[in-house]
Amino acid sequence: MSASVTTALLRGSDPTLVLVLNLCGTFVFGISGGLAGVRARLDPFGVVVLAAVVGLAGGIARDVLIGRPPATFRDWRYLAVVGGAGVVSWMAAPALRRMQPAIEVLDAAGLGLFSVTGASIALTYRLGAPEAVVLGAISGIGGGILRDLIVREIPQVLRSGLYAIPAIIGATIEVVGQRAGAHGVVVPLVGAVACFAVRVAGIRYDLSLPPRPG
Amino acid sequence: MSASVTTALLRGSDPTLVLVLNLCGTFVFGISGGLAGVRARLDPFGVVVLAAVVGLAGGIARDVLIGRPPATFRDWRYLAVVGGAGVVSWMAAPALRRMQPAIEVLDAAGLGLFSVTGASIALTYRLGAPEAVVLGAISGIGGGILRDLIVREIPQVLRSGLYAIPAIIGATIEVVGQRAGAHGVVVPLVGAVACFAVRVAGIRYDLSLPPRPG
Amino acid sequence: MSASVTTALLRGSDPTLVLVLNLCGTFVFGISGGLAGVRARLDPFGVVVLAAVVGLAGGIARDVLIGRPPATFRDWRYLAVVGGAGVVSWMAAPALRRMQPAIEVLDAAGLGLFSVTGASIALTYRLGAPEAVVLGAISGIGGGILRDLIVREIPQVLRSGLYAIPAIIGATIEVVGQRAGAHGVVVPLVGAVACFAVRVAGIRYDLSLPPRPG
Repeated sequence: MSASVTTALLRGSDPTLVLVLNLCGTFVFGISGGLAGVRARLDPFGVVVLAAVVGLAGGIARDVLIGRPPATFRDWRYLAVVGGAGVVSWMAAPALRRMQPAIEVLDAAGLGLFSVTGASIALTYRLGAPEAVVLGAISGIGGGILRDLIVREIPQVLRSGLYAIPAIIGATIEVVGQRAGAHGVVVPLVGAVACFAVRVAGIRYDLSLPPRPG
Repeated sequence: MSASVTTALLRGSDPTLVLVLNLCGTFVFGISGGLAGVRARLDPFGVVVLAAVVGLAGGIARDVLIGRPPATFRDWRYLAVVGGAGVVSWMAAPALRRMQPAIEVLDAAGLGLFSVTGASIALTYRLGAPEAVVLGAISGIGGGILRDLIVREIPQVLRSGLYAIPAIIGATIEVVGQRAGAHGVVVPLVGAVACFAVRVAGIRYDLSLPPRPG
Repeated sequence: MSASVTTALLRGSDPTLVLVLNLCGTFVFGISGGLAGVRARLDPFGVVVLAAVVGLAGGIARDVLIGRPPATFRDWRYLAVVGGAGVVSWMAAPALRRMQPAIEVLDAAGLGLFSVTGASIALTYRLGAPEAVVLGAISGIGGGILRDLIVREIPQVLRSGLYAIPAIIGATIEVVGQRAGAHGVVVPLVGAVACFAVRVAGIRYDLSLPPRPG
């Protein structure tokens, strides 16, 4: 199942569930980019562009590092979703800010999903296990890094360990499971849920690793 | 004609007119990067590098997103032109600053040309219509985004709608026209001129979209 | 020898010497990234990520611009080395800061090596001579540019001519030599040593080019 999901992803014919999940994750990342753009006082177009960058950058970086043409750029649904996320960010910014906790939970779900599917795609392209973990993590956190660079903040994900660490956990579970020969939806699900849970715990208890003293 | 121009572009054997226009656009974008470097008090080498980045980045991003090796990096004429733009920026910065209005008009012409040819190349690589519009716009505005990131400004093109909007208009005209079966130089010309006109009107009347209030 | 080294690089089967040198250069660049992360008060994970970005970015940019899948991402040893550089940066930051002069010398050695091997790889992929010089220089300085962007400084290499100029010198020697038909290890060695010497002289005598007056 995991293998067939991956194969389907490669062929651009996502089974409906994975497609919907991927589009949801892209949308949520897009919203986080769009809201950052509103905060930075960008104009409407800038908000839409930043939503698109944040929604798509992780997957594009993953595909460029694998060495294949970026898949999301050949599927109009992803472009429609990030465009929609940008428009919604602009129109509904105040309401979305009140929903910040809910959005962070959705963002955590997107993080889990992207990290796991990114690692899985990397394995399918015959990258080694450590490379697949790194690529999975990049798929999850790449968009947020670019978002912070563009609005001129030192990337938050490099300051808060509980953003990148869950991505690495999720990707590692997927890679270890797939290498151990697991098929079916259980391993990717466990990976995504573990990532999600660690991330949500990090938000809830405001956990983060300190910078080096001195 | 449009198709043959595109085919020629793909094969790296630009017909003379398109080549000259592309090199002019690259040069003008290079100048805008070089002047930004002088303003940011970079050393001569930094000025040349920034000119090269701004002149080439849009086309490189377009080609990476399409999934082909960046074409400009296989043609020494583009490197020569951006190098020349950097040297000119360094040597003639005060004169160029006095010519700012003329340069903005040339920049608008480059924007129109790159947006249209970018969209056309994307279609030739069998990307869908919305993807081709996005890639055309990226070809036009990518260099400016990187320029502003490197000198640590929030990208202007994300603040001023009348930089990105004309790029989208030009790319859309090209894509719609080509999809409608138009051949010949008329459609790309109309697209480039429309982009140019909207951009120049935006400069002349200082039009831009406001950030979101509140 | 130069050709066989290049061929071996392409096939991912570095002869031991070149592999060790490449890994050393990657490690030293990784340390410079990790220390920048400690200075910017990143958390431990952020320090490791920045070490990885700085160690790998030059080679990744080179491969993307050539149009081949990034080689370092298919070789776990590079990932292990940059991960190790990040951990060492975090643990030993005070000691490393006291060793700053020694690290700058190692960094100069990495700069020489990467510029020469980058230019050599570009020639093997049939890029022209000027493109190969540019790609060699990008291999050498790409990591440092990204490092400075992420910690929000205008890239130092664009301010100090004696970082990029030695890279260009080293790459040019390699390209001219290889085009002149030289085989063997002499030309790449001369290129790397020339780059190293100019860079070290620049550090020792605090040479740099001024920004444009006025």
